[in-house]
Amino acid sequence: MSIGGPTPVTAHDIGNALRLLRENPPLVQCITNIVVAQWTANVLLAAGAAPAMVDNPREAGGFASIASGVLINLGTPYDDTALAMLKAVKSAGAAGVPWVLDPVAVGPLAWRTELAHHLLDTSPPHIIRGNASEILALAGGAGGRGVDTTDTAESAVDAADSLAREYSCVVAVSGEVDQLTDGVRRVRIHNGHPLMTQVTGVGCALGALMAGFSGVVDEALLAAAAATATLTVAADLAAAHCRGTGSFAVGLLDELTVLTPERLEELTRLS
Amino acid sequence: MSIGGPTPVTAHDIGNALRLLRENPPLVQCITNIVVAQWTANVLLAAGAAPAMVDNPREAGGFASIASGVLINLGTPYDDTALAMLKAVKSAGAAGVPWVLDPVAVGPLAWRTELAHHLLDTSPPHIIRGNASEILALAGGAGGRGVDTTDTAESAVDAADSLAREYSCVVAVSGEVDQLTDGVRRVRIHNGHPLMTQVTGVGCALGALMAGFSGVVDEALLAAAAATATLTVAADLAAAHCRGTGSFAVGLLDELTVLTPERLEELTRLS
Amino acid sequence: MSIGGPTPVTAHDIGNALRLLRENPPLVQCITNIVVAQWTANVLLAAGAAPAMVDNPREAGGFASIASGVLINLGTPYDDTALAMLKAVKSAGAAGVPWVLDPVAVGPLAWRTELAHHLLDTSPPHIIRGNASEILALAGGAGGRGVDTTDTAESAVDAADSLAREYSCVVAVSGEVDQLTDGVRRVRIHNGHPLMTQVTGVGCALGALMAGFSGVVDEALLAAAAATATLTVAADLAAAHCRGTGSFAVGLLDELTVLTPERLEELTRLS
Repeated sequence: MSIGGPTPVTAHDIGNALRLLRENPPLVQCITNIVVAQWTANVLLAAGAAPAMVDNPREAGGFASIASGVLINLGTPYDDTALAMLKAVKSAGAAGVPWVLDPVAVGPLAWRTELAHHLLDTSPPHIIRGNASEILALAGGAGGRGVDTTDTAESAVDAADSLAREYSCVVAVSGEVDQLTDGVRRVRIHNGHPLMTQVTGVGCALGALMAGFSGVVDEALLAAAAATATLTVAADLAAAHCRGTGSFAVGLLDELTVLTPERLEELTRLS
Repeated sequence: MSIGGPTPVTAHDIGNALRLLRENPPLVQCITNIVVAQWTANVLLAAGAAPAMVDNPREAGGFASIASGVLINLGTPYDDTALAMLKAVKSAGAAGVPWVLDPVAVGPLAWRTELAHHLLDTSPPHIIRGNASEILALAGGAGGRGVDTTDTAESAVDAADSLAREYSCVVAVSGEVDQLTDGVRRVRIHNGHPLMTQVTGVGCALGALMAGFSGVVDEALLAAAAATATLTVAADLAAAHCRGTGSFAVGLLDELTVLTPERLEELTRLS
Repeated sequence: MSIGGPTPVTAHDIGNALRLLRENPPLVQCITNIVVAQWTANVLLAAGAAPAMVDNPREAGGFASIASGVLINLGTPYDDTALAMLKAVKSAGAAGVPWVLDPVAVGPLAWRTELAHHLLDTSPPHIIRGNASEILALAGGAGGRGVDTTDTAESAVDAADSLAREYSCVVAVSGEVDQLTDGVRRVRIHNGHPLMTQVTGVGCALGALMAGFSGVVDEALLAAAAATATLTVAADLAAAHCRGTGSFAVGLLDELTVLTPERLEELTRLS
């Protein structure tokens, strides 16, 4: 559904993207953190994608060249996995495989901030997804206090635009209203629920879904929007029936499992 | 229950194995992957076993000699944990502690394929458990595309037989019908549900349960069958009441918690 | 509620501590194990705290100086994370940030036992939390067989007292009745349910909550008691409505989400 006029991506496009993902499950390589690895794999599986957590430096590079999409998440990097990330990004770049950066806690933490820039300079990403503080920090502004954001998505839109133009990629800022941009065109997604911030890894799983959708649709802006709509619409549905964060997380997987392309198109609220 | 004649392992044997596991909880050392470590521990606990995730090279060897059974799962190996695996397998071999290999994604990924062969050559395993693609690859055939199987369990039965004879162990091939063999005798288990493939780590947890049952019954074929029946019967029960993958996973743990040896015997379908 | 006379910490104090935690969410750095990282983060979030799993040696030290509290959990230490622990503890000590030690499986495993003593000698902890076997082992007695305790909490009270005096900290022994001591004063908490031992990481999450409460109340004995009461009261409530370990874990997060300071005060049973 469009709120207030035509958008560069439509709810119909998004429903179709989910249909494509279900018909031809993308193989999503995730080099992610120890906190959310299980949850990320389960979100991908529930949505219809095929996760593969190949995250050691001996195999990550080779695998990236045969994956449908690659997620690089900086939640808990170690020397070993940081090297795996660099190899995967290089290999994905060479093979034309889209990769997504989730710059968790970039800003206040110097090493991973350097690592993020090193990755971005190694091979341009398809999508960068973060909260407002992370996007502001990556674009050269001030950062938050770890994984929390202390800024609204709205406040990071200009930084997102400039980052998108710098790397010719899409930048997605998660927040109450999700803000997506390719540097020129913007999509806002109005679905989602505050409970998403009280379960660890919901944002991380969103990055993984973006890597998955990047393997089935060509346009990065559509891949980012389809992933965001899929997860936030499922969250809306789950939030309506939960008692707390435990049943919300379970319900989110359930709603992803049963979500149809038609229902996704119907419930997505864009502007 | 036996379908079509006597089987080398009976449903009654399997019920008894669960009774033994509950009466004397085996200490199961798991050197497994970052994706499924929590889930694996929770499956073991729900079934009645005692998990211990000792997976660093400084402690894994010593611990393996006092464990009831050892699981080696190749999901996310690193240099550090690969070394821990080798030490644990060596130590388990020397101490007569049964160990189980889960060769996750062996085949398309060269390093872990070498590692799997190195482990098998270090000390013969009690059980090898994988999907059809992994078993085919380990036996020298073609492989899949990561953790997914692109082959049916039936198609890997001959490869499983030859692998079982090569290492004098039991080989279990997971699939719609689970195929177990010690190289001479075969057991087929007809329980289980497609949802098991949409939750990450269900197969990994099966390997861990096999290590647990190996600590309470002498015969490897019975240990493998009891683990498979326990998990797949619980899955059948959970699948009957779930909405999607989230509630299926929760229900699987619940059904494992309340499953009795009598009910397991009654619901197990062998041939 | 007090059972049998005045206690050094009251249920009213505990309710107030939860109120403070909700009003000003502490940033809890967790250097914990791969098994429980997700669950720990989710317990902290459900209770109202802000987790940050910064556990690599390049960032852990710097981050510890800006955290509200630091958890060091020895569940699956590696060379890399062990170094991160040492740096975090040193930095927390220098910055006056309270840190909590969870000496998982200390005793039978030599390397981590040495590591635990090294950490304790680097900077005195605010709280040590373990099961009876771990506390007995840390105080110089015999140990258990891994993560399980083979001793009752009551049997470790004298060891806990001497450990508390040695490091001028609070020692909390988890068990059917939780025993907390600062070496002079003792608090016993009578809430909790056996299902807590059948879900992995409930004790680990308790340590994380203690680090969280340490960031909002000055007194270590109150922080340890408030964390214990919060988790065990939620467990009591969850246990009343679950079918097995799966729904118990989900319910525990739900109950933490909806638990109010008033209800916590009302249901806490101290002596």
